[in-house]
Amino acid sequence: MTQNPSEKTSVTLLGLGAMGTALARTWLAAGHPLTVWNRTPARAAVLAAEGAKVADSAAEAVAANTLVVVCLLDDASVDEALADADLTGRDLVNLTTGTPAQARDRAEWAHGRGARYLDGGIMAVPPMVGVPEAGGYVFYSGSRQLFEQHRETLGAPLGTTYVGEDAGFAALHDVALLSAMYGMFAGAAHAFALIREEDIDPTSFAPLLADWLVAMAPAVHQTAERLRGGDHSQAVDSSLAMQVAGIPTFLTTAEQQGVSPELLSPYFALMRRGLAEGDGEEDPTGMIDLLVR
Amino acid sequence: MTQNPSEKTSVTLLGLGAMGTALARTWLAAGHPLTVWNRTPARAAVLAAEGAKVADSAAEAVAANTLVVVCLLDDASVDEALADADLTGRDLVNLTTGTPAQARDRAEWAHGRGARYLDGGIMAVPPMVGVPEAGGYVFYSGSRQLFEQHRETLGAPLGTTYVGEDAGFAALHDVALLSAMYGMFAGAAHAFALIREEDIDPTSFAPLLADWLVAMAPAVHQTAERLRGGDHSQAVDSSLAMQVAGIPTFLTTAEQQGVSPELLSPYFALMRRGLAEGDGEEDPTGMIDLLVR
Repeated sequence: MTQNPSEKTSVTLLGLGAMGTALARTWLAAGHPLTVWNRTPARAAVLAAEGAKVADSAAEAVAANTLVVVCLLDDASVDEALADADLTGRDLVNLTTGTPAQARDRAEWAHGRGARYLDGGIMAVPPMVGVPEAGGYVFYSGSRQLFEQHRETLGAPLGTTYVGEDAGFAALHDVALLSAMYGMFAGAAHAFALIREEDIDPTSFAPLLADWLVAMAPAVHQTAERLRGGDHSQAVDSSLAMQVAGIPTFLTTAEQQGVSPELLSPYFALMRRGLAEGDGEEDPTGMIDLLVR
Repeated sequence: MTQNPSEKTSVTLLGLGAMGTALARTWLAAGHPLTVWNRTPARAAVLAAEGAKVADSAAEAVAANTLVVVCLLDDASVDEALADADLTGRDLVNLTTGTPAQARDRAEWAHGRGARYLDGGIMAVPPMVGVPEAGGYVFYSGSRQLFEQHRETLGAPLGTTYVGEDAGFAALHDVALLSAMYGMFAGAAHAFALIREEDIDPTSFAPLLADWLVAMAPAVHQTAERLRGGDHSQAVDSSLAMQVAGIPTFLTTAEQQGVSPELLSPYFALMRRGLAEGDGEEDPTGMIDLLVR
């Protein structure tokens, strides 16, 4: 064991892809003794030159420190890497991208091998690691004790947001926010496509688009209030019926600009389904339950 | 003619729906003499009590002032309302929602009747009118002279953003930004659906979602730079191939949470189409051209 209460916590890190390498460099720069392992050794050699100890196997890396952070390609890679490792007494922090169910299964698996477990969902790309002003962070869920004990170490490369004891909640928050981002990017793609053939500079259009999206994003607070209260009828500024009435303008404009409506038409179809269910005078928030089985 | 250079510009307003009424009240409050007309007279009577002159017909309202603002239900309503009006020498500002093609046709129609024409696309809901801190504004396009001359009057109820001489550009910008907003709302709807059956308070989730969307919205600036330059290969943080590799996590999570993927699957399908075209190592921005015929 290399840990010493008066020093920075020693960290074992499995996985040196772009994200793992960025994490490793931040911990090294912050003075954390670091043991690394990567399936292909070349990436580890680079970090050895920067001060990391390189383990010959994942099991050896796990044996080196209590705090074991895993950042691999997928859940199957975690299985493979940890197959021979002794996890007894280890604090396993799994930053590997996966589903909530994979995280819950992995937590149970880790507990059965004598480890505490914390799952993480990374809300950042590698260039944001170690750059606090970039605003990147990690959702954590699972053992609150593990999180509290290692909060400072985990917080060195990226911000930390703990979202609950359920090990699946970090992945669920991660997937939910990234899903919403993809929706926004899909909408932005449609918007850029609409102006593509016009004499409009996309870099002049982008500030208008960005400001508008930033101004409209807080609407999710009202959505949340309505979902919590179950009330979609009070204080409706723009009813579902009014919004459905506007759909032809969107579809006709897309057609006139030669743009496929494929990215937006499912949302319009959902609106029309809500209207058919008799929710026309309500806020469109009520439609959300139509998505859930 | 009631106009007087030393006073606030007199305004004629046709259409007193929720938006028209909000505009009318702001002009009255700002001291602009106002003549109004509405197809059904009851709404005009309310404004008469607040100081507006009420015209018996749209033609009479048009005759009263040089500056004529139209805020009706749709393009057909504009046709109907202005059928008998003499537009000679009038400055027609059309805030009625429509397509770029309708705006261009309406501009030609107005010019043929001796009027200058400015089209407007309103980026606000009625409660934002007359509340500058709410940030609502109107895209204007068409006659720059008309816009410059009446900029102050037009700017009383909502901010003004002039986007070009092409009368269709205001509607195009309006539809493009609202389309992007619908994409964002679709993504947010999917995100809320994912947590719907979990023990997660939507009002605790909303700030995380809003902050994330606000943080990611500026990505449209890079999108615009790539579209302008035509370069989707340089400085790629997260390639199309990497993002396609992540799609199963999104679809499996949706399935496990009992959520239909209908709002997001077209974007994933587009990504896969981009990958099939050999753009895997590029930034996903290149996909946008796949939407345009």
